[in-house]
Amino acid sequence: MKNTEKTMEKIVSLCKTRGFVYPGSEIYGGLANAWDYGPLGVEFKNNVKKAWWKKFITESKYNVGLDAAILMNPQTWVASGHVGGFSDPLMDCKECKARYRADKLIEDYFHDKGETVVVDGWDNQKMYDFIVDNKIACPKCGKVNYTEIRKFNLMFKTFQGVTEDSKSELYLRPETAQGIFVNFKNVQRTTRKKIPFGIGQIGKSFRNEITPGNFVFRTREFEQMELEFFCQPGEDLKWFAYWKEYCKNFLLSLGIKEENIKMRDHEKEELSHYSNATTDIEFMFPFGWGELWGIADRTDFDLKQHMNHSGENLEYFDQTTNEHYIPYCIEPSLGADRVALAFLVEAYDEEKISDTDTRIVMHFHPALAPFKAAVLPLSKKLSEKAEALRDELSKHFACDFDDASSIGKRYRRQDEIGTPFCVTYDFETEETGMVTVRDRDTMEQVSVKIEDVAAYIEEKLKF
Amino acid sequence: MKNTEKTMEKIVSLCKTRGFVYPGSEIYGGLANAWDYGPLGVEFKNNVKKAWWKKFITESKYNVGLDAAILMNPQTWVASGHVGGFSDPLMDCKECKARYRADKLIEDYFHDKGETVVVDGWDNQKMYDFIVDNKIACPKCGKVNYTEIRKFNLMFKTFQGVTEDSKSELYLRPETAQGIFVNFKNVQRTTRKKIPFGIGQIGKSFRNEITPGNFVFRTREFEQMELEFFCQPGEDLKWFAYWKEYCKNFLLSLGIKEENIKMRDHEKEELSHYSNATTDIEFMFPFGWGELWGIADRTDFDLKQHMNHSGENLEYFDQTTNEHYIPYCIEPSLGADRVALAFLVEAYDEEKISDTDTRIVMHFHPALAPFKAAVLPLSKKLSEKAEALRDELSKHFACDFDDASSIGKRYRRQDEIGTPFCVTYDFETEETGMVTVRDRDTMEQVSVKIEDVAAYIEEKLKF
Repeated sequence: MKNTEKTMEKIVSLCKTRGFVYPGSEIYGGLANAWDYGPLGVEFKNNVKKAWWKKFITESKYNVGLDAAILMNPQTWVASGHVGGFSDPLMDCKECKARYRADKLIEDYFHDKGETVVVDGWDNQKMYDFIVDNKIACPKCGKVNYTEIRKFNLMFKTFQGVTEDSKSELYLRPETAQGIFVNFKNVQRTTRKKIPFGIGQIGKSFRNEITPGNFVFRTREFEQMELEFFCQPGEDLKWFAYWKEYCKNFLLSLGIKEENIKMRDHEKEELSHYSNATTDIEFMFPFGWGELWGIADRTDFDLKQHMNHSGENLEYFDQTTNEHYIPYCIEPSLGADRVALAFLVEAYDEEKISDTDTRIVMHFHPALAPFKAAVLPLSKKLSEKAEALRDELSKHFACDFDDASSIGKRYRRQDEIGTPFCVTYDFETEETGMVTVRDRDTMEQVSVKIEDVAAYIEEKLKF
Repeated sequence: MKNTEKTMEKIVSLCKTRGFVYPGSEIYGGLANAWDYGPLGVEFKNNVKKAWWKKFITESKYNVGLDAAILMNPQTWVASGHVGGFSDPLMDCKECKARYRADKLIEDYFHDKGETVVVDGWDNQKMYDFIVDNKIACPKCGKVNYTEIRKFNLMFKTFQGVTEDSKSELYLRPETAQGIFVNFKNVQRTTRKKIPFGIGQIGKSFRNEITPGNFVFRTREFEQMELEFFCQPGEDLKWFAYWKEYCKNFLLSLGIKEENIKMRDHEKEELSHYSNATTDIEFMFPFGWGELWGIADRTDFDLKQHMNHSGENLEYFDQTTNEHYIPYCIEPSLGADRVALAFLVEAYDEEKISDTDTRIVMHFHPALAPFKAAVLPLSKKLSEKAEALRDELSKHFACDFDDASSIGKRYRRQDEIGTPFCVTYDFETEETGMVTVRDRDTMEQVSVKIEDVAAYIEEKLKF
């Protein structure tokens, strides 16, 4: 089938009706672009996070994990530059009072002409002049009469403490990365890790985006999977290349097709002033190419900032070179919700079985599928014994059970939620000790001994 | 050894020096009672969460999971009663301006007399009168001259949106439970679950506590593991008993000793007005008995509140009884950080090996231990091959590697972080294909074939 048939509408609808993702607080009319993961979604997203942790932490001889708090000492965000510089360039239409992100107005202007341009790195004056010079009209009223551009900080603010003198302004962290940097010394000292080594973290971050959207692609509350990899200055471009390849292979090993991703190197003018190199891995979403993974060589910028602001010495003493230095850092930063959406899009398929029959099937890698198997008794008379098998399998992995309606309908239901193996318990099972295992993708069936089913399926979960 | 020797000081110190838990944002002087989980702590806490998920979701035929957003439509908290009633009773000393929680002043007063009293359920006037009548003095200045008691809401507030008319006041959720209640209908419809069934969730919650403390026992940002189990009205006390037992067994199966917990049933006057029964499972922390798990029969209170405030019909149609009803709900609610602390306390041991030798050992259940194994080459000459074994084992579980210093010291290091198995690679290994596996608790060693090590250890992780 053609890729164009995978619309966001279909995916959002499947997510909602099958229990992957619901609109947040739906009974109260929702909350702007907030989403809740349902019973299948939480298993699926947990599997995505587990897969990342497995490859980036457990199996990596270089990296260790961390779980820093969401609420941090606010000085952190002064040092990181977020208090001063983490903002959107906003302008209002003086005629109709609508408010816009200037960079988005420009990007949309190019997009409408079939061109792509990245406005990152333009200053306010350049954006303002461009909009006026090219007469980019207000999308709402059609006039070209804007205010100056003002910066709007994207951090969510809150307050902690109850007495007047102890009450302090805090931010919800806009990224997990800084929790790693402030703990660099603690982690290095307690693990006795030597450079090069990395610290990885999975956790929620919050950004007060003016235009969240595209389902879970951009949300104000989101989950990140970030690695900060520390190396010797001068070795950074080598490690940058290493992690770029590692990240790409991670996606391919879990079923993303090579033709659906591209590596976009940032142009020199697009780079942050402290970055030696940055590459985005983009994925072909139904709404176009979207950033999935940002891999950046951040040099010693972050540790140096924290060193200057905290007064702590964050230098590393390298016993092999007998030198003190501030390590350089490679940061592969990935959104868990965003990559989960990419896996959902990649997996979605409408497969023509015959002229009159189409099945919807989610071709998840078995490691990511919410349920690894479903036990289906051929008749309700077999339900009790089949359920005992489900109980046994569920000690190994998430396993569904379904004894309602025809076996054909039940297969289709499991196809639609991406269950890789259907285990059919039939009238001969008790005699022969064999069950039938149906493969979601090939729809082929094999006979397997009951006591071997768990191992048979566990073998397929590897990646 | 005597339980009294397990001091909080020792546990906090071990956590910090070995990388379980660091003070949050430490390089900036920290943030009042905020904590970051280090490389060992994140593995350990993740194992605690995985164990809960395995027993309460994956292996349970009744329950499914959910992951609702932290930011919810604020009407949720009006309906739940948190906007109106989720507050601490605060009073100030008029003499020295110190601020106190009235209920704590009273509890401390009894505590100093060696008595325990629960002030939950007392109204402001009763607390105020008690303090005055008993002349409970200000702990700071010794006077008895207080203001009236005022309510201070414990929810963290924040703001979302950038334009004046779209900007809205939000709360950081003070509990995960309401994310479940508002999704009750979505989950029931999409999973086609029949009563009785439960919905479980793990996630961060935030409470602006005036007195956080006791390490990770009470923090403003914390993680909950909550189950809301829906049943037919009238069946609630039966299920209440079922889940009480299930929760207790969960703790025992992971190494908590029966003598260190007690089940405390709430007195009638202590019960919330909507609750049919509530029991706390308390654990003997070094600072005394502390609540670990609250198990409450909440009747139909929450669903009814949301039904009234949202206008959505949250009734369930029971096909077996042919009735429409609002399900009753049993809520076993557990703090992940708090139960992790209980497992840390339970595991801690100073074991006398000889007159001059004591080892510190963390007797974690293998399922909870941060590393399941450590590969230790007997000599640095064997490091490369031993590391290959570590790489292989790490495809199965978290596995440490250590080739620095004497083997005795390395064993002790692993004992102190609770690694249940040390795998020693020695000079004969290449010839014989055997390694030595040392048990953390018994310190006994057995020879195991290299290719069987993973399975040998995986077998021990079951619970």
